[in-house]
Amino acid sequence: MKQSQLFTKTRKEAPSDEVSKNAQLLIRAGYIHKEIAGVYSLLPLGMRVVENIKKIIRDEMNAIDGQEFIMSALQSKETWIDTNRWDDDVVDVWFKAKLHAGGEVGFGWSHEEPITNMMKGHLSSYKELPVYVYQFQNKFRNELRAKSGMMRGREFVMKDMYSFSKDAQQHEEFYQKTITAYKRCFDRLGIGKDTFVTFAAGGAFTEFSHEFQTICDAGEDKIYINREKNIAINDEVYNAETLKKLGVHADELEKVTTAEVGNIFNFGTKKCEEMDLYFNDEQGKRSPVHLGSYGIGITRVMGVIVEKLSDEKGIIWPQEIAPFTVHLVTFGKNENIFREAESLYYDLKNAGIEVLFDDRDAGPGQKLNDADLMGMPYRIVVSEKSAENGGVEITKRESGDTEYVDPARVIAYFTEG
Amino acid sequence: MKQSQLFTKTRKEAPSDEVSKNAQLLIRAGYIHKEIAGVYSLLPLGMRVVENIKKIIRDEMNAIDGQEFIMSALQSKETWIDTNRWDDDVVDVWFKAKLHAGGEVGFGWSHEEPITNMMKGHLSSYKELPVYVYQFQNKFRNELRAKSGMMRGREFVMKDMYSFSKDAQQHEEFYQKTITAYKRCFDRLGIGKDTFVTFAAGGAFTEFSHEFQTICDAGEDKIYINREKNIAINDEVYNAETLKKLGVHADELEKVTTAEVGNIFNFGTKKCEEMDLYFNDEQGKRSPVHLGSYGIGITRVMGVIVEKLSDEKGIIWPQEIAPFTVHLVTFGKNENIFREAESLYYDLKNAGIEVLFDDRDAGPGQKLNDADLMGMPYRIVVSEKSAENGGVEITKRESGDTEYVDPARVIAYFTEG
Repeated sequence: MKQSQLFTKTRKEAPSDEVSKNAQLLIRAGYIHKEIAGVYSLLPLGMRVVENIKKIIRDEMNAIDGQEFIMSALQSKETWIDTNRWDDDVVDVWFKAKLHAGGEVGFGWSHEEPITNMMKGHLSSYKELPVYVYQFQNKFRNELRAKSGMMRGREFVMKDMYSFSKDAQQHEEFYQKTITAYKRCFDRLGIGKDTFVTFAAGGAFTEFSHEFQTICDAGEDKIYINREKNIAINDEVYNAETLKKLGVHADELEKVTTAEVGNIFNFGTKKCEEMDLYFNDEQGKRSPVHLGSYGIGITRVMGVIVEKLSDEKGIIWPQEIAPFTVHLVTFGKNENIFREAESLYYDLKNAGIEVLFDDRDAGPGQKLNDADLMGMPYRIVVSEKSAENGGVEITKRESGDTEYVDPARVIAYFTEG
Repeated sequence: MKQSQLFTKTRKEAPSDEVSKNAQLLIRAGYIHKEIAGVYSLLPLGMRVVENIKKIIRDEMNAIDGQEFIMSALQSKETWIDTNRWDDDVVDVWFKAKLHAGGEVGFGWSHEEPITNMMKGHLSSYKELPVYVYQFQNKFRNELRAKSGMMRGREFVMKDMYSFSKDAQQHEEFYQKTITAYKRCFDRLGIGKDTFVTFAAGGAFTEFSHEFQTICDAGEDKIYINREKNIAINDEVYNAETLKKLGVHADELEKVTTAEVGNIFNFGTKKCEEMDLYFNDEQGKRSPVHLGSYGIGITRVMGVIVEKLSDEKGIIWPQEIAPFTVHLVTFGKNENIFREAESLYYDLKNAGIEVLFDDRDAGPGQKLNDADLMGMPYRIVVSEKSAENGGVEITKRESGDTEYVDPARVIAYFTEG
């Protein structure tokens, strides 16, 4: 797209009340707009990033037979009564409102109960199990504090997946498959090598649950890791007993600050018993369904990526989630140079390479600063200087490495790797 | 996809409290799940329909230079104070909640104020105008009554677009362009010939606004139409003065029941004056921006289509929004027949034709009834009988016309029109 057509503008300063680095950079670069603390609108560039993240997660969830759907945000009080989670003393992040027609509704902070309830209309036999469903849903949480930008929102996008299985073994198979799929997700999102599957506090049915924690200074969690043994332990279960069980010594572990980017949880049959989701098994016996839930915080991941992959100049997007692969920049008064840049813009587009063309009437300083701030993986400068150097100047945002490439070879540069 | 993998099941009866035809059919066919009155979750089939509708609208909005983004649902009270629309006595459909951190938030029933507010950070000069932005957003409305299924929701998907223009002429050009784009949308959605651009009540700046009204017995509106003169008048402005202005006589008009599927509205400069969205014009003078807003009710359109395009057997989806183009059905115990059907399933998929393959272990009656209920445009039956008749049986859902086609020619049947 042509940048002159993009309505968002970069800005030198973030709002004075915005203390998190991720939101500061995303606001300054025109990706998001702050509505209130912890609530951000996604401007065109920000929406592209979120859609790219969703695309990766969708690929991986479809690959393990997930069926996408979408629940409502409005939820009935009745759905949450049987599990005792309607009460504000039990769940302290509810947004609730009174219906004009009478009664109360909640705005979904989670969907475990509504989806278990919905499944009652569609599950009755072991032949129908297992079932895996997932959604990308806006969650609403009435957080007391929301100072971490996209990393802790009062409204945020989450991928939540649920597995319905006939027994512990069928459940466990999918649980392990999801761990593998999640690893692929975080690899593709560019934070794989700093993301650890941690042992976290379990529930009624399991000793441990698992979280995916990414090393991040702005995170709210602490974990203990051993990279060689590939062991990671959440602070909450870090004790002598756990260490012994996992066969690791305290002095082999490094304490790091992390952000939780995903979690997976085994409810066993507890929730389905409470909510009356049963099926007829092979022997015709009425049995409770095994439920698992598997979350990834989509907008939180966006915040974590910006915290980790940025420098003093701005954001450094991994290629697969960048809003555009190439930021094509031209400047100066030479009309031939502008036409050359414009022609390259259409060539790149036609070759299927996503390109943002800075065709604005502005100086080199502003354009180059904006390109660094906005953070596309490749910047191409077409200028009199680049022509003198034998072509166009291609700079990788991550390394800063620059080379001059013959305009006729630019498409091959991208398509031939 | 294979129907045995689809977790949703059809059902003979809709919930007893569901009185609308559209929701009854959509629930019975497994497209939606009713959470509370006016609130429906989109099951995998329903999500596909909504995404198909969105794709059409997105195409057309992009074609008139709309930039897609997405605002938050949570809105600050302050945004709505200047235009006096926070007050429940002025806007009676607000859902509001108290923040634990203090203060109140609203759940967006509309986004005119937040978007105008957001634009203040991005607009300053006439050079930046016009700007057109749009989103697909869940709206929340605390409706007293919600008995029309997908046609009047407490939570529903809306496409809302906004134009920001420097003067009345620039505004008017886009306003007219949008009318044309909307007509294309409703044509592609299969309800074009029954959808009318009506004269509706205007606002401070215009004598009339415009609505898009579709003839539909389940609708809540009445309009007066003359098909030959292509004139349509909303009940609210149907009077001698309007008739005179439009040069039409009462006895040339037919009164019909309709559902509002879209509306377009000219705010003139009023809202931007109230909210302080100004720009510097060519003469350096500070001038208020002209605002237009343009809505299409995405999930309402889905409801209207089901109301209009259905029969006693079920839904009849127009091809461009059907979740699958083909419902491939096979039955009987003959393994060769099943293998032939399965092979056709993969051939169709490989040819890029969306196909739902009913591979379930069920009888012909249930499978054929389900296919009629679910409403894909084409049903293909592969059975011993179809083989005896020289191939596979292709039936158009709309006309009921059936023909037998050589299996080797099925792909050509779809790709060669």
